Amino acid sequence: MLSEFLLAEMNRLGAQDALPLHRQLYEALRRAMLDGKLGAGERLPSSRDLAQDLALSRNTVVAAINQLSVEGYLASRVGSGTYVNDHVPRASGARALRGAPAQAPHRQAPRLSRRGEALAHRFSAHELEVQPFTPGIADFSAFPLALWQRLQNKHWRMTYPDMLDYNTSGGYAPLRRAIADYLRVFRSVQLEADQVIVTTGTQQSLELCARLLADHGDTVWVEDPAYWGAMKAFMANGQRVHPVATDDEGIRPTEADDAEPPTLIYVTPSHQYPTGEVMSLARRHQLLATARAHGAWVLEDDYDSEYRFSGPPISSLEGLDLDGRVLYMGTFSKVLYPGLKLGYLVVPKGLVEAFRQAHYDLHRPGHMPTQAALAEFIEMGHFASSLRRARQTYAERRQCLLEALGPVLGGEGPDAPRISGAEQGLHLCLRLPARIDDQAIAQRLAQQGLIVRPLSAYCLRRTDLRGLVIGYGYAALAEIRQCGPLIAAAVRKAVG
Amino acid sequence: MLSEFLLAEMNRLGAQDALPLHRQLYEALRRAMLDGKLGAGERLPSSRDLAQDLALSRNTVVAAINQLSVEGYLASRVGSGTYVNDHVPRASGARALRGAPAQAPHRQAPRLSRRGEALAHRFSAHELEVQPFTPGIADFSAFPLALWQRLQNKHWRMTYPDMLDYNTSGGYAPLRRAIADYLRVFRSVQLEADQVIVTTGTQQSLELCARLLADHGDTVWVEDPAYWGAMKAFMANGQRVHPVATDDEGIRPTEADDAEPPTLIYVTPSHQYPTGEVMSLARRHQLLATARAHGAWVLEDDYDSEYRFSGPPISSLEGLDLDGRVLYMGTFSKVLYPGLKLGYLVVPKGLVEAFRQAHYDLHRPGHMPTQAALAEFIEMGHFASSLRRARQTYAERRQCLLEALGPVLGGEGPDAPRISGAEQGLHLCLRLPARIDDQAIAQRLAQQGLIVRPLSAYCLRRTDLRGLVIGYGYAALAEIRQCGPLIAAAVRKAVG
Repeated sequence: MLSEFLLAEMNRLGAQDALPLHRQLYEALRRAMLDGKLGAGERLPSSRDLAQDLALSRNTVVAAINQLSVEGYLASRVGSGTYVNDHVPRASGARALRGAPAQAPHRQAPRLSRRGEALAHRFSAHELEVQPFTPGIADFSAFPLALWQRLQNKHWRMTYPDMLDYNTSGGYAPLRRAIADYLRVFRSVQLEADQVIVTTGTQQSLELCARLLADHGDTVWVEDPAYWGAMKAFMANGQRVHPVATDDEGIRPTEADDAEPPTLIYVTPSHQYPTGEVMSLARRHQLLATARAHGAWVLEDDYDSEYRFSGPPISSLEGLDLDGRVLYMGTFSKVLYPGLKLGYLVVPKGLVEAFRQAHYDLHRPGHMPTQAALAEFIEMGHFASSLRRARQTYAERRQCLLEALGPVLGGEGPDAPRISGAEQGLHLCLRLPARIDDQAIAQRLAQQGLIVRPLSAYCLRRTDLRGLVIGYGYAALAEIRQCGPLIAAAVRKAVG
Repeated sequence: MLSEFLLAEMNRLGAQDALPLHRQLYEALRRAMLDGKLGAGERLPSSRDLAQDLALSRNTVVAAINQLSVEGYLASRVGSGTYVNDHVPRASGARALRGAPAQAPHRQAPRLSRRGEALAHRFSAHELEVQPFTPGIADFSAFPLALWQRLQNKHWRMTYPDMLDYNTSGGYAPLRRAIADYLRVFRSVQLEADQVIVTTGTQQSLELCARLLADHGDTVWVEDPAYWGAMKAFMANGQRVHPVATDDEGIRPTEADDAEPPTLIYVTPSHQYPTGEVMSLARRHQLLATARAHGAWVLEDDYDSEYRFSGPPISSLEGLDLDGRVLYMGTFSKVLYPGLKLGYLVVPKGLVEAFRQAHYDLHRPGHMPTQAALAEFIEMGHFASSLRRARQTYAERRQCLLEALGPVLGGEGPDAPRISGAEQGLHLCLRLPARIDDQAIAQRLAQQGLIVRPLSAYCLRRTDLRGLVIGYGYAALAEIRQCGPLIAAAVRKAVG
């Protein structure tokens, strides 16, 4: 009987969700029609009968029936009652015929596209959990939250309606100016404030570059070993990633690489990710010459130059570029906190309008009050002091880690364990002889609860590199004191 | 003389930027070397001489020289002085030879890729300025800013470090639950909270779908007339956009369209953008059947159902879907404010893990404290009251606009001016006879400072539609009273 079905459905819905009664009845009647329990053209019980049978108020029933009528399920015939519409199709989607059996639905297989599969399964951040020694992660528990909160408050109170809207000028102007001033002074980037595009971080900066400067199928040179995040961005945009091996001076293209001419060249010259090597001056000029020969754009990802422990930061690659072919990107994720989602991309003058337009079209940039707070945070010197404090903290942790690893360094031969990349950033690389199984060491440490990354896992084509990529940004000093020796022990055991 | 050059450079740099003196000297010396004024292998003046000649402290000079040494420009020879390194290449990037002439740099032409050009020039939001009658824009000056600020404060104070990090679970769980509850009750979406992916808005939701469910070159059906924003997203991802004409029941695929089988079908069934038509129940079932026949995914963009003026919101298309092939997306941009950058995508269960992973990999989602504030804003009923107030405001403006346009409606024939889409949302469509030049009307109004959009401008392939798309969300009541009659007058003049 219809009432039994409706009651049962309403009980089920009522138990599962906080639906108002008229919605429960609406859903139950709809289900009845879709399942064929109320056939096309069939007359509905009167609202009074339904109200009595279902112990509902008349209003509730009328509300449900009205909604179903508006949506086309039911139709009233004056003086005759309410009928299920002739053309209400059944759940199967087949054209409704009276008495036609309901067909089984054809569930869409939850299958991804080829690109979706590639994105899902290659180089995924398996350990999405942040572990103390995860490379590249900063300890944002030291972030001056109270101060930041006061600044956000202040800018919220000052907020006029336009600040709640999208932005079309590449970011809040005072923030663009503050970023430009900082980059000019501390990274020797040649720029005016208008060339800054404020993004949500490196991933979005890469997106803009990959989309506007390259086509599907174009070749992108990346360093080998590589930063996965960049690879994903290029893969998602249909570009062909061509790995170019690095050495201790940085990316080193050979004639074989020139046979795969790039549209884009992605590099991390200040602190190669993950080996940490600094691109030498000579190599920088060679790279610019190579890029010129190919007519390629160079994407410089300067992700942690704020944390340099030996001497002032190395000048940017962009500062040497006279061709206007280097796009420089940075991020606040490691110097403030990741969830802030603020970074920047410096584009050559001729590209500013196109990048601003695309940034609006594809990303609809917002969060203007937060950008205003950050502009003040920088202008008032809080950014600089925050950096100084953070640098000290990380210097201590780095030192502690270096001391723990000291005993395994050195030894016979050119292949002996050594550290690379400790001059800067939030991670270093412990290089190991080519015969060592670094993945096995990482697994052994993982069983002890320590996640370090094997260097070979970052290699795309080359097979000669072994080592451990170890972060010290996130681990507390005590953890490093405790766990550093465990890492050293595992290495010593493997190296012999 | 070297000193003159250095002094001139430093003066220039000092006037232009707030560079510290040692950086000015660093830059000036670097420029001298790159320009060949200090040749490879040449000996530098002593730091005492430089200090005297340039009226600088010895420390300043030493700092600059040290940095240049670290970077490889200079080298010290014990007891002999400081020399320009042999291998310092010149600005031209050619291998440095003593005395080799500097070559002219090859400026990279600021040329976009083919995709970049297409993105920059087709369907760009020419009028990036928000004008009172721009369709689809809400008046966020009425947003309860003080309340929102208090909530944000509260959640900032409660913030523990993890809340400053990226999120990997598709969004802050209480917010996903609040969204799921809302959608279940008010939009008849079938879902559990885990199926919600919190995004930065519709553009990002479209990104995820286009990347994970379709490949480069795949066909996407869009409604004709179409929403430009969605077209841009599909174009950016290399998909082929195939327009399918709508009628007064929504998208109406024909056999000709079936000859271009889609991987994705993008629709706005609750309030077709821009005509405002509601997809009928019969047409909804037909669409699902068609999608099933093609094995296609359906992307339902439900962008303004919160604002319905005639009756409760029409149930979602997703609620009729038994195949698990409809992905439902919505946004808070029009019900809160655009710069908040929060929206949501509901994915079928089998796709949850893949979408969460890709969302993290490509977008690094953050802003958790804001998500927490929004969850409370919804749970405590502020969202509902904010909506109610907004609905009242918009109802008044809509009414006022309808009254102003009333005089031009009706008339002879089936082609007579009529309104479509006024039951819902923040815009309506004034449909005009096919003989009318709607772009000319829009231009005439633009000269009076009124921006309305001609309907024909949204048409991709069809040429039969004429009309004006007029927003009433942003214009104040007084503006509508004043300008509504001007729009009516321009229409009357054109229609005759």
